[in-house]
Amino acid sequence: MRIEILNTGTELLLGTTLNSHGAWLGKELLNLGLRVAKQTTVPDGMPVVEAMKESVERADVLIVTGGLGPTSDDLTREATAEAMGVELIEDEHALRCVVEFFERLGKPMADSNKKQALIPCGAEVLPNPNGTAPGVYVPPRLGKSSPCAVFLLPGPPNELYPMYRAEVPHRLRALAEIADDHRMLELRFTGVGESSFHERLDANLHSMAGLEVGYCARPSEVDLRLIGSSAVVAQARDFALSEYPEHLISENGSSIEEVVVQLLADQGKKLSTAESCTGGRISSRITDVSGASAVFTHGFVTYSNEAKQELLGVGAEILEEFGAVSEEVATAMAEGALRASKADIAVAVTGIAGPTGGSAEKPVGTVWLGFAAKGDNAYAIEQFWPRDRESFKACVSQKALDMVRRYLLFGA
Amino acid sequence: MRIEILNTGTELLLGTTLNSHGAWLGKELLNLGLRVAKQTTVPDGMPVVEAMKESVERADVLIVTGGLGPTSDDLTREATAEAMGVELIEDEHALRCVVEFFERLGKPMADSNKKQALIPCGAEVLPNPNGTAPGVYVPPRLGKSSPCAVFLLPGPPNELYPMYRAEVPHRLRALAEIADDHRMLELRFTGVGESSFHERLDANLHSMAGLEVGYCARPSEVDLRLIGSSAVVAQARDFALSEYPEHLISENGSSIEEVVVQLLADQGKKLSTAESCTGGRISSRITDVSGASAVFTHGFVTYSNEAKQELLGVGAEILEEFGAVSEEVATAMAEGALRASKADIAVAVTGIAGPTGGSAEKPVGTVWLGFAAKGDNAYAIEQFWPRDRESFKACVSQKALDMVRRYLLFGA
Repeated sequence: MRIEILNTGTELLLGTTLNSHGAWLGKELLNLGLRVAKQTTVPDGMPVVEAMKESVERADVLIVTGGLGPTSDDLTREATAEAMGVELIEDEHALRCVVEFFERLGKPMADSNKKQALIPCGAEVLPNPNGTAPGVYVPPRLGKSSPCAVFLLPGPPNELYPMYRAEVPHRLRALAEIADDHRMLELRFTGVGESSFHERLDANLHSMAGLEVGYCARPSEVDLRLIGSSAVVAQARDFALSEYPEHLISENGSSIEEVVVQLLADQGKKLSTAESCTGGRISSRITDVSGASAVFTHGFVTYSNEAKQELLGVGAEILEEFGAVSEEVATAMAEGALRASKADIAVAVTGIAGPTGGSAEKPVGTVWLGFAAKGDNAYAIEQFWPRDRESFKACVSQKALDMVRRYLLFGA
Repeated sequence: MRIEILNTGTELLLGTTLNSHGAWLGKELLNLGLRVAKQTTVPDGMPVVEAMKESVERADVLIVTGGLGPTSDDLTREATAEAMGVELIEDEHALRCVVEFFERLGKPMADSNKKQALIPCGAEVLPNPNGTAPGVYVPPRLGKSSPCAVFLLPGPPNELYPMYRAEVPHRLRALAEIADDHRMLELRFTGVGESSFHERLDANLHSMAGLEVGYCARPSEVDLRLIGSSAVVAQARDFALSEYPEHLISENGSSIEEVVVQLLADQGKKLSTAESCTGGRISSRITDVSGASAVFTHGFVTYSNEAKQELLGVGAEILEEFGAVSEEVATAMAEGALRASKADIAVAVTGIAGPTGGSAEKPVGTVWLGFAAKGDNAYAIEQFWPRDRESFKACVSQKALDMVRRYLLFGA
């Protein structure tokens, strides 16, 4: 069953409003085991007619959002009638819906709202408890020019979501023969390069019959998406985990900061941070997680050499001898944060975010990450991310969180 | 000039990733006075070919995002060659871009990355400093089957945004005959409520002939977009500024953190931060600005009462008597940060981010912001943002930055 989505609204194309309906509907349909073949956005007015004509030719089901209002650029009803080859009539039930909405509000109904009771002849009216615009369902094979089934749903989310949930899924279930055994799993990995990751997994995964594979990469993070029957998804998952056992962050969409806070809480441990080049990004990510206060108490943002000395007790002589971006300083920062916070684990970063401040020896993108834990020897590792400032901070904070994750899971 | 956008990526249709590229590009094009006629999203793979064929038939310019990676479902290059009727060849310049990217990273290049150097014959390679995938520009009338101009841009935002900015606007300007006296101005305001802002400005702005007005609201921030001739845009700007003279952050898209860092640098002053509920978000925003090291040296993330005492010298008795979320503690935190950092200005926040931790007296969303500056009396103000955790941190950090901005501009 080919499903298309058409989102109408000039504001969606001006960039002033983010089109979240497409993603929201995609997710809802996936819950039914259904997929969106194509999503289109067009401005209000005549482009809706053209886009509907194209879609109903290809699709079995078309879901349209927006354009059901009373104003002159709300043309979805008219476009449907034209694209499907059916007549538009004033529907008694739809008119009652509109009239009753205004009565409930205790407000007079404008004449223009009468337009909202125009419905393609033979279509069903979908009540809208949260707004003036009734929805419309055109069943398959009602239209003269296309057998496509069409849903017209309102644009405002507080009207769209409840109407979708009340009116759409059972009709789609009846239209489709939905397979019961359909599963999607998203595995989130960190510390793997997208292309090598891909190379090691792809041939094997693609040989698994009925499995759909997808990758989505962010700075220092890759999601591996597996779709298919439970059996083949489980087989693919086992294979991916056997190749990258230590790189898996989560199987449920959890972020690495959520995983780290949970691990710390489970083990009754506290974490401290000492940040130079990330400037508080690591502690901000940790405290994005509700409940972080149980595992995080002290964070140090030591952007200058003086701050590293005063707050973390880093020796002036090692700053002098090795420079702020060095193994020695990163290690001393982690040790200092551990001491000053009385935490169980401390992580520290010092690097050159750029775009300025680099040298031949230590170019922009160079970073040292220090790690200290009670009863273990502190150490530091060097990494290199010659990227824009935002990606650099994302990669460095991700790696710091991953050092904590690995220590808590694997002891190193 | 008819412009279409094609966003490719299965994840965009599954609802797991929100398609923000459409909106972002819409906004950028609006800056040039250009409008998007249609935006389409299709899954990776063969649907890209079909969608491109449809678009290049109708459009003068097609902008495609995604599908430039090394994996088997990245088919945008192939789809372009097929839709435009041009041959795909291995491009020396593109190959060098890919090779150099891996050299910079000091990592071996996988064989699959070679695929990224395949370019429609005669097209231009757009360098990608932030990733392996070079972009592509197919000039108009290069294709045998369509005269459409096509831009192929990478999907990851940290690659897309800089490539768009470096490579696309000047080519679009050359393609379109953009009216000289067509101007767009975006005024960014903070500390104004969207609806009252709108109400105070709207009638007057809408009476100005030939002016297009738009609003875009984010937590604690509203952009007012003015499009029209230089004269009417200037008139509208003057009116908006006369209504809200102290709320304007910038007229050029600068963020409040950029404005604050610049003001501090201009006045030769240093800022320090003491953060409880924002957990480092304020310092992270400040250090997102290149050059922040000249004005920011010490940040304190004091998530626990002990940290507030140890790092900022907040008295145990005032924590005991008034509680951590109080005027007295916020003021003492700011004073402590000023003292410990030897900065000129310090800002402090302590509040209840939620979703748990609230009480009848101090519900979730309560926050006290403290402010201290050399030679002035420290003080604190109370605010209330009963929002989700992310919006709460955004609003609190914005307000803290605005207190600094107002002090530097207006002395209070």
